[in-house]
Amino acid sequence: MSDPIEFYFDFASPYAYLASHRIDAVAARHGREVAWKPMMLGPVFKVAGTRPLTDYPLKGDYSRRDFARTARLLGVPFVLPEDFPFSTLTAARAFYWTEENAPDKAKPLARALFDACFAEGRNTGEAEVVGELAGAVGLDAGAVLAGAREPAIKERLKAVTTDAIENRGVFGAPFFFVDGEPFWGSDRLDQVDRWLATGGW
Amino acid sequence: MSDPIEFYFDFASPYAYLASHRIDAVAARHGREVAWKPMMLGPVFKVAGTRPLTDYPLKGDYSRRDFARTARLLGVPFVLPEDFPFSTLTAARAFYWTEENAPDKAKPLARALFDACFAEGRNTGEAEVVGELAGAVGLDAGAVLAGAREPAIKERLKAVTTDAIENRGVFGAPFFFVDGEPFWGSDRLDQVDRWLATGGW
Repeated sequence: MSDPIEFYFDFASPYAYLASHRIDAVAARHGREVAWKPMMLGPVFKVAGTRPLTDYPLKGDYSRRDFARTARLLGVPFVLPEDFPFSTLTAARAFYWTEENAPDKAKPLARALFDACFAEGRNTGEAEVVGELAGAVGLDAGAVLAGAREPAIKERLKAVTTDAIENRGVFGAPFFFVDGEPFWGSDRLDQVDRWLATGGW
Repeated sequence: MSDPIEFYFDFASPYAYLASHRIDAVAARHGREVAWKPMMLGPVFKVAGTRPLTDYPLKGDYSRRDFARTARLLGVPFVLPEDFPFSTLTAARAFYWTEENAPDKAKPLARALFDACFAEGRNTGEAEVVGELAGAVGLDAGAVLAGAREPAIKERLKAVTTDAIENRGVFGAPFFFVDGEPFWGSDRLDQVDRWLATGGW
């Protein structure tokens, strides 16, 4: 089997949430796996000279409309949490701890985090919400939250983020690599699909 | 026949160039016309708090790759002019003068401007290039360039741009309205197509 598709995202990205509902199916059609790689958009925005979409005049209002409209088209529920945007540092660290200690639960936790945030409007920046969702997918909430505070786990998230920016040219989310080819945005998934089918054009 | 689809763009927008090769065919499938509305991205960026894509760190490099890759997928030639980005003020004014004085030549002139820029890499910010292209589509180059300097024409471009920002929420290009519904980006043309087919979702 070829290398997995890389899926870089922040748990607070609405378009990454939409992509989270499609990417594994797209990959599976071509016999591929997906490596989910949460990162922190804060440092990414800093280097890229950008900020959260909803903070921009005009573009912010349009984005809110487009999130919901695109979600409806995909048949996926969508709500923007009241206190959006927030930092999902604990969520991202919890993901990496889970990946190292209970790998089968890592993607279910990630999906639970995305859905709690953008289907239910919950604030997944809060540690207690992360703990509750960890419990709901069969993890020990206390162990996950303690794990998210381990220096090695904090270091891992930092390293993924730094590598994404410095070595991979990642400037937003979601961001995909298919055999090294970069694709930005949930609206590039049709191109990702075709790239996988054809090997490029 | 229903209202035309509105197509807002700047002649210096690579994604608007890509859209210019698709939008009329998409509209025609649904028995619709397209009203082409050049505007100036400079004032738009100022209000929106953004800047030309290629000026952003990381995003700039990705954009250059994505322009070319998406163009190949669409079967459209693409080259980024050496002195990109430049102001296409004269081009936009020439379009409106033509629309008022030789309406059948307005879209041919617009297509010639887009293609000269992004298929041939020419600087369509230069008045002599605008004049030459006007001549090539059967207009009197001198009349078009003189027309582009008329106060009423200058005013019209300014009014379109101000109205787009203040009343329509336009923050980038290309930007489409289908019966009032806003769509931003050439990668929303599939949604535009579906909106026209279904009346919304």
